[in-house]
Amino acid sequence: MLEAAEIGSSLSREDYKKREPELRWELVQLQHRFKASKSSMIIVVEGDDRPGCDDVMNVLNAWMDPRFIETQAFGLPTDEERERPLFWRYWRALPARGRIAIFSTEWTLWTIAARMRGNIDEREMEHRTDQIRRFEKALADDGTVLVKFWLHISKRELKKRLKAGEKNPEELWRYRQEDKTIYKKYASGMAVVETILGKTSTAEAPWIAVESTCRRHRDITVAEAIRSVLRRCLDGDDAAAEKNAGGAKQVGATKRPETARRAAAPERQHDAHTVLDTVDLKLKIDDKRYEKQIVREQARLHRLALKAARKERSAVLLFEGWDAAGKGGAIRRLTAALNAQMYRIVPIAAPTEEERAHHYLWRFWRHVPRLGRIAIFDRSWYGRVLVERVEGFAAREEWQRAYAEINDFEEQLTDDRIVLCKFWLHIDKAEQLRRFKERRSTSYKRFKITEEDFRNRKKWNAYEVAANEMVARTSTPHAPWHLIAANDKNHARVEIVRIVADSLKEAL
Amino acid sequence: MLEAAEIGSSLSREDYKKREPELRWELVQLQHRFKASKSSMIIVVEGDDRPGCDDVMNVLNAWMDPRFIETQAFGLPTDEERERPLFWRYWRALPARGRIAIFSTEWTLWTIAARMRGNIDEREMEHRTDQIRRFEKALADDGTVLVKFWLHISKRELKKRLKAGEKNPEELWRYRQEDKTIYKKYASGMAVVETILGKTSTAEAPWIAVESTCRRHRDITVAEAIRSVLRRCLDGDDAAAEKNAGGAKQVGATKRPETARRAAAPERQHDAHTVLDTVDLKLKIDDKRYEKQIVREQARLHRLALKAARKERSAVLLFEGWDAAGKGGAIRRLTAALNAQMYRIVPIAAPTEEERAHHYLWRFWRHVPRLGRIAIFDRSWYGRVLVERVEGFAAREEWQRAYAEINDFEEQLTDDRIVLCKFWLHIDKAEQLRRFKERRSTSYKRFKITEEDFRNRKKWNAYEVAANEMVARTSTPHAPWHLIAANDKNHARVEIVRIVADSLKEAL
Repeated sequence: MLEAAEIGSSLSREDYKKREPELRWELVQLQHRFKASKSSMIIVVEGDDRPGCDDVMNVLNAWMDPRFIETQAFGLPTDEERERPLFWRYWRALPARGRIAIFSTEWTLWTIAARMRGNIDEREMEHRTDQIRRFEKALADDGTVLVKFWLHISKRELKKRLKAGEKNPEELWRYRQEDKTIYKKYASGMAVVETILGKTSTAEAPWIAVESTCRRHRDITVAEAIRSVLRRCLDGDDAAAEKNAGGAKQVGATKRPETARRAAAPERQHDAHTVLDTVDLKLKIDDKRYEKQIVREQARLHRLALKAARKERSAVLLFEGWDAAGKGGAIRRLTAALNAQMYRIVPIAAPTEEERAHHYLWRFWRHVPRLGRIAIFDRSWYGRVLVERVEGFAAREEWQRAYAEINDFEEQLTDDRIVLCKFWLHIDKAEQLRRFKERRSTSYKRFKITEEDFRNRKKWNAYEVAANEMVARTSTPHAPWHLIAANDKNHARVEIVRIVADSLKEAL
Repeated sequence: MLEAAEIGSSLSREDYKKREPELRWELVQLQHRFKASKSSMIIVVEGDDRPGCDDVMNVLNAWMDPRFIETQAFGLPTDEERERPLFWRYWRALPARGRIAIFSTEWTLWTIAARMRGNIDEREMEHRTDQIRRFEKALADDGTVLVKFWLHISKRELKKRLKAGEKNPEELWRYRQEDKTIYKKYASGMAVVETILGKTSTAEAPWIAVESTCRRHRDITVAEAIRSVLRRCLDGDDAAAEKNAGGAKQVGATKRPETARRAAAPERQHDAHTVLDTVDLKLKIDDKRYEKQIVREQARLHRLALKAARKERSAVLLFEGWDAAGKGGAIRRLTAALNAQMYRIVPIAAPTEEERAHHYLWRFWRHVPRLGRIAIFDRSWYGRVLVERVEGFAAREEWQRAYAEINDFEEQLTDDRIVLCKFWLHIDKAEQLRRFKERRSTSYKRFKITEEDFRNRKKWNAYEVAANEMVARTSTPHAPWHLIAANDKNHARVEIVRIVADSLKEAL
């Protein structure tokens, strides 16, 4: 999920100056309205950008009304705290209804730190993340809104800062031995971070990864996300109050606002720079080189696939991407290298009546391959958070919940030693139009194109937001997304065959 | 939770004959109405009474319309199944909306069996129970109603049956080597069962323990619980349909019935024989023996408490029970044996304004003791599932959710090596009235009694149902309930001091 926070997002001074005053004004208004809410709010500010966390805490205190914010940075446990169960300190510090607390170095960070230092093993880590999930669920069920930020900087940025710190004594105090340790063990450290963030990113309390390189971008992103959550939360309260006033059915029961549980994820805005923008669409392979490379990669894939079959390793390959991005063509280049009995292509269209009568994952579970076989999904379970989200076929709670459900599902696949490759084929809007027109004018391609495709183009922005959130929330260390530059078909095809071969090789 | 299924419940032939025809008729009606539901239902039939599970499956198939029931007994995994992730077989077998499936030897039982055989360790067991919880949550979120029965027989009953089986060849085939193994490892086996059932007894999918000694009682109990869940489920559907027809706001979104998630726990009926009835209220200690015994036990407690303090072990003792059951008196007999700085009494009355503004567990977390100290709760967090449930201060979803939340909380205490003793002081209705009258006529006791107490007596039955469900769902191996016969104060006091001393001793 961190790759979405390494895309070079930044905000110019002018833009910042334009957005800041209104944002601050509205935050304070919302905060005052929140005092009457039956919910409480916990804003969690964590990250590998340690000094950045301090900055954000200060910014929020400056921008909002500090009288109604409780700031808590949990340092090393006190004597009092050490003598009690782990979560005692957090229970003690919970904000009352109508109040907002900002927590730093909280429960998740301690687990990450313990795992990075090797103080706890994988199983113990799982036990703790389970405790975290249950703790956060109990809070969310009671109406607490959890907004969790992870401030991230790339390894290169960290290096730059550490160097600058050495030269500038005024900056030096901000960096400690800890940051050097993070730098030294960056790759393995971030793998731990990704695993734990993935496991604790639930529908009730999703993590929001924020790129922390540009301070202006970081501060505005965090504050806007809080504004978005506060708005939705208060709208929910109003709706609930209206409903209660109308119905007036509950007598003694204290009714928590049901909307609270759904409000923790901010509305994503489209204007943001997305992870898809990092794909370099100029990548190209000319036809001559393509012919050579594709044959070489296919031969490699063929050998490795045979070996995988012999060793009873199965694989699941899935393809998502824009209409006309070249999924079908890429799949054919893969299957050309496989024996027919080894693979099965599973094209995913609108669900059948029987499929609609089951859990949405049921249709995909059915196609999990046997040992030594390969299942190729042309579109997949990600439809839940793409087309079903954008077209409104799934309710908001349903697709919000789906990220965690999908991560669970894929974890079960990879735990069972299935090789899983997820591809997003990326093209730009102009290229799509060109291909649509070409399809219309080529007789044997005409069946592929309908008026519907042109209609869908109008929702490009909404799909872009959905795809971006999908990558941010389901790219896990055990099942990362591969974003493929597909404006050039040659490039995309070679890339895909190579990645599948590499993945098999790594697994064998 | 199994003690509630060892209380000698039975049903006479006449009662059975009276209840059976109507029950069957209504089940079939409900089942036909369910076909139009947006939910599906999975009835899980498991238990240490293995042949009993088969019987119940047959009974349900006979009593309901078998055309609309899918019966699935998952035996050893097939080749097909072994080659895929663990849950594949269950996903495949999920019923469609409007359909009912009966599952036996399902996911939980496999985990229990693996743990009993020592094939998996504690951590792996926790990982699996976590998977089960997530799987069941995903189903429940999607509108599947899970009704899970555990059929239990006592060790004595199992022995009787095995003996009878040896003599009667017609019965013998029903018992296998497996049952003999269960008999031999009964105590440790049931501890595993209790742990796993406790961890997988969630608000979405609680276990219902059924005493399986008397077949008539067992069959009627299971069928009535299914009836109760079906009724509530269909009522919920009707209400949702009405609401949708009125509001008509959602356009494309397929809306699952929200009520489904809450319907999985059947309404308990009062006429049932409860675990509280097993307390032998005739137990008595005469004054002379009492004087000797209480002093001896107090001296023992004093020594052990000092030792616990030196070894930095803390304890939480909590007292629940009927009004006037003698909680205060018992607590005074405990504290008489302790040094004042060692303990703290936490009396729980109606929550303060500050407490009401937080999660209901917050006020109790605050009083978790430091190392070496003892916290004595005069009433406790169980108020959530007792007074708040009965008086309607907590909504149904809130107290239903509380069982799992309380088990989580207590697990954190015992994981932190805190000694936890939970007492329910039991008296009968007549004894309570006698004590109320005595309080009214004794000047220095008069402050203890108000008109409210007399009013509460009228809700005796509702409290009995609540207390019974509380014991059934929160008596876990790490935190069992002690049900104390308290009609005789002498007996209750000696018992309590002794149990606390024993618990400390065992922990040191």
